[in-house]
Amino acid sequence: MLRLLSVNFRGFTEHQTLLSLKFSTSSVMAKSKFEYVRNFELDDTCLRNCYIVVRLDGRNFHKFSEQHNFMKPSDNRALGLMSRSARSVMEELEDITIAYGQSDEFSFVFKKSTTWFKRRASKLMTHVASQFSSSFVYYWKEYFGEHPLLYPPSFDGRVVLYPSNRNLRDYLSWRQADCHINNLYNTTFWTLVQKGGLTTTQAEERLSGTQAADKNEILFSEFSVNYNNESPLHKKGTTLIWEKVNETTTKQIKRPDEVQTEITVTRTRKKVTSHSCDIIGDQFWEEHPDILESDQC
Amino acid sequence: MLRLLSVNFRGFTEHQTLLSLKFSTSSVMAKSKFEYVRNFELDDTCLRNCYIVVRLDGRNFHKFSEQHNFMKPSDNRALGLMSRSARSVMEELEDITIAYGQSDEFSFVFKKSTTWFKRRASKLMTHVASQFSSSFVYYWKEYFGEHPLLYPPSFDGRVVLYPSNRNLRDYLSWRQADCHINNLYNTTFWTLVQKGGLTTTQAEERLSGTQAADKNEILFSEFSVNYNNESPLHKKGTTLIWEKVNETTTKQIKRPDEVQTEITVTRTRKKVTSHSCDIIGDQFWEEHPDILESDQC
Amino acid sequence: MLRLLSVNFRGFTEHQTLLSLKFSTSSVMAKSKFEYVRNFELDDTCLRNCYIVVRLDGRNFHKFSEQHNFMKPSDNRALGLMSRSARSVMEELEDITIAYGQSDEFSFVFKKSTTWFKRRASKLMTHVASQFSSSFVYYWKEYFGEHPLLYPPSFDGRVVLYPSNRNLRDYLSWRQADCHINNLYNTTFWTLVQKGGLTTTQAEERLSGTQAADKNEILFSEFSVNYNNESPLHKKGTTLIWEKVNETTTKQIKRPDEVQTEITVTRTRKKVTSHSCDIIGDQFWEEHPDILESDQC
Amino acid sequence: MLRLLSVNFRGFTEHQTLLSLKFSTSSVMAKSKFEYVRNFELDDTCLRNCYIVVRLDGRNFHKFSEQHNFMKPSDNRALGLMSRSARSVMEELEDITIAYGQSDEFSFVFKKSTTWFKRRASKLMTHVASQFSSSFVYYWKEYFGEHPLLYPPSFDGRVVLYPSNRNLRDYLSWRQADCHINNLYNTTFWTLVQKGGLTTTQAEERLSGTQAADKNEILFSEFSVNYNNESPLHKKGTTLIWEKVNETTTKQIKRPDEVQTEITVTRTRKKVTSHSCDIIGDQFWEEHPDILESDQC
Repeated sequence: MLRLLSVNFRGFTEHQTLLSLKFSTSSVMAKSKFEYVRNFELDDTCLRNCYIVVRLDGRNFHKFSEQHNFMKPSDNRALGLMSRSARSVMEELEDITIAYGQSDEFSFVFKKSTTWFKRRASKLMTHVASQFSSSFVYYWKEYFGEHPLLYPPSFDGRVVLYPSNRNLRDYLSWRQADCHINNLYNTTFWTLVQKGGLTTTQAEERLSGTQAADKNEILFSEFSVNYNNESPLHKKGTTLIWEKVNETTTKQIKRPDEVQTEITVTRTRKKVTSHSCDIIGDQFWEEHPDILESDQC
Repeated sequence: MLRLLSVNFRGFTEHQTLLSLKFSTSSVMAKSKFEYVRNFELDDTCLRNCYIVVRLDGRNFHKFSEQHNFMKPSDNRALGLMSRSARSVMEELEDITIAYGQSDEFSFVFKKSTTWFKRRASKLMTHVASQFSSSFVYYWKEYFGEHPLLYPPSFDGRVVLYPSNRNLRDYLSWRQADCHINNLYNTTFWTLVQKGGLTTTQAEERLSGTQAADKNEILFSEFSVNYNNESPLHKKGTTLIWEKVNETTTKQIKRPDEVQTEITVTRTRKKVTSHSCDIIGDQFWEEHPDILESDQC
Repeated sequence: MLRLLSVNFRGFTEHQTLLSLKFSTSSVMAKSKFEYVRNFELDDTCLRNCYIVVRLDGRNFHKFSEQHNFMKPSDNRALGLMSRSARSVMEELEDITIAYGQSDEFSFVFKKSTTWFKRRASKLMTHVASQFSSSFVYYWKEYFGEHPLLYPPSFDGRVVLYPSNRNLRDYLSWRQADCHINNLYNTTFWTLVQKGGLTTTQAEERLSGTQAADKNEILFSEFSVNYNNESPLHKKGTTLIWEKVNETTTKQIKRPDEVQTEITVTRTRKKVTSHSCDIIGDQFWEEHPDILESDQC
Repeated sequence: MLRLLSVNFRGFTEHQTLLSLKFSTSSVMAKSKFEYVRNFELDDTCLRNCYIVVRLDGRNFHKFSEQHNFMKPSDNRALGLMSRSARSVMEELEDITIAYGQSDEFSFVFKKSTTWFKRRASKLMTHVASQFSSSFVYYWKEYFGEHPLLYPPSFDGRVVLYPSNRNLRDYLSWRQADCHINNLYNTTFWTLVQKGGLTTTQAEERLSGTQAADKNEILFSEFSVNYNNESPLHKKGTTLIWEKVNETTTKQIKRPDEVQTEITVTRTRKKVTSHSCDIIGDQFWEEHPDILESDQC
């Protein structure tokens, strides 16, 4: 097999020119000799007419949250930064119609008919993971101020396909139900620790085997906390969608008679908006009929 | 199909407790109802006994390099930052035995027998893409100082499997041959522009159809540049491997007789080292016999 | 690495018993040593909630049909045998709700929710290919009588997933449109040859560039053949579905008074039925509403 | 969406011709409208430079063997038919360099560099499954004579890739070790039943928990059967490979002097040969060095 010759040019005598000619041929030929390795790349095109969901999960975020002194049970700065990073992903990849995040995870839904990266799973998920991660570091200061980021964090991702609207909605419902269950647990746990003076071990034991109703009861009867009044951000997570918003700006213009005047310009623009509401029931979907595509296609 | 009831707790009357009990059951039941969506995730385990290569490529880095005023033909700050980010990936994922980078791309080679993430392709490539991207932003300042990063960049990735040592070496040779060909072109192109006063269009025309030898000749006869003396970093790219290094530290200790004394401690530690040398020929591989595993396995 | 010892038992002396003990341990240990190779099998589970279509195509059936003197343009014995084999597949795999065949191909549609073989693509398609092929040889005589089968034929297969009813119907429409186009061509071609006395080359030239209307015209004006009256089997292919049929049998029974009498028993049974009708329009689907599952799932 | 019109030609009036023109356009247009469904087929190319193994397993062969009164523990007619069918597969697919069968299973190994069917897994495995199954029925009579085949049997298949010679040999060793273990068990089991007069339940209990040595002992001390003298076909299974064989034929020719004479012609031809020998140790592989390809490629 041909190998790229390691050639030293000490001067350009006739002989050297020939050598370098040989070299040039060799290097191009060598590259073409090696190029067969491209064929080892396997196709990972996503099945057509399915929603493509990319979910990211923080790696070792338990430790990360400890090291960066995240507030318990939830740190609004961290949640804000997660959403900011997710928005950055959506603005880069417009075929994402909805994203849902909670805790250290975020799911991105590409529309069924997307042709981004020719629907190649690897490209879609690495691009999402990369854009999210660079944004997370980039916008850190906006959310944590002088509180320094100690090291670059990472997120892993996966791709899942959903053929029907029912499947997609059930996926998002699954994540939001998970958010609810975890948040109720964490709220009660940290209330027991922070207000009740229990150690973490004691709090864990206290909650072992309890139902949601028991936790609501603990919060209410022991700490006068009505879980229902807790922050929607914590209970429902964050849903990002594209919405048309009117943007009004004022402009100074010169009228034909040279008199300076102010006019108001209103433009409609698509923008990523954030919601902390229930997405399990039908209401959200009825209010935003453009997110889901027809099952009849 | 069961849906998570949206329940309002206005007070904990008897009735409410029952409701919340119902709610608790509902939410857990609901989650378990939705959980079937997990089964839509498909397995993407990489074939055993193959090298797993993850290659990252910068997205829109032509534009990115313009916007950040990268030096032409190569910007050492950017190359340094790429390597720093790649090192960050290797330190996180010790089963990467070698990484090779040039221009805005970096390839990471997991050993054949790795069991990281159970060899799941999606996890491996997203983790690499994520760690690299967050590191790129995190270490930006170390390389670009006060020159600001204007927006979070992104990299896309892919996974390719190579069954044999020959295939893997040919893959790396392919990338290094690509580095060589591009760098010779770029060096000549920007010399024509920067020193020869040509416009970029003129330089492009001048180089159209030329062989490597012609470019060497242009550099040497017109600009007295011996391409062979150009920086190895630019000609050969960057190869990162794990090497045992001796680290010597001095320690103040107290002898049994209470006299303070200084001793020297030498420890052997595995460390990521950087090389800009030929990896197409055999020498590099003979000098580092631990990188490749036996084909006989 | 342990290898299975090749042991010769010449007699069962004490020594031999020990040897055979060693042998026994070796063989089991050896097997377990080798068993790691199972992990090289990759998962090929089909995405949930999608129709799974397995299509078989005859291999080298042009030659096969020549060697077995198939009638032109279509051989009813061959088409009958294809359908008989397809029925054999459906009776083995009840989750196939519809099958469509024409020429030397047959498509089998598994319902969206099938869990046969845990939805493993390889198992589904090889089972279909195998059952079809063994049936083709097994039932040959029923269709070809004393006309002998010269060698065992083969069919290759593939798996395609369709997420929606629209996609599935479009797939079947595609195959039936293909049937129509080919049959019109073949009917005209062989009429020109058999009745018109053209050579096959001349017939090919005559038809080159013609539209369906031209072919209809040739058939009608030159040969008084109204294509519309041609056999539905040839124009529409064969659609197999499951239908409930009433089966009436007569039984001899003894009444309590010992008098022999005859009674009629009617049972409803699911049976594969064959249709040569249009499946592109809505009528067929409205008449058989059980074939498609709801898109809302 | 365009649908293929269902057109009735009752006569070719002017109007009808127009209609049929419309029809022709519609059918071709319709087909092209439907053709998008082709893009749902996913690529399943096998990784390059790996052995491709297709293994077939009989479906419900326990029942099949009962219904066809197979001899116990092994039926030589059935084993012969399996091998005959496997040979038929190898003769169709010359890139299969070795096949190994035992009981109701057969494995086929395609060489690393095969490009049959562009290495598409689905095509390879369905073709093997189909050819094997049609051959099984086709050659039944050669092995079972007047003993009739009651119904068409089927085999399912799978594809597994092996990157190295060691992996491939371990795969084949695994199957042969399995053959050995099963055959020793079955031989002892059926000896206990057939010669020892035990019921199958009693035989099962007797063998429960026994080692290979125990079974050897039972056979020898109770039935004077030396397992080592049992048929190699049963102990080792069947290995099929391609070998060059000399074929000598005699021909009658006329010499120039018009005298009739007989000459002997020897030709070398590649032929599938069958072996029942150990393939776990090195000897077989050393004797047939062409089966394995170099790991250095």
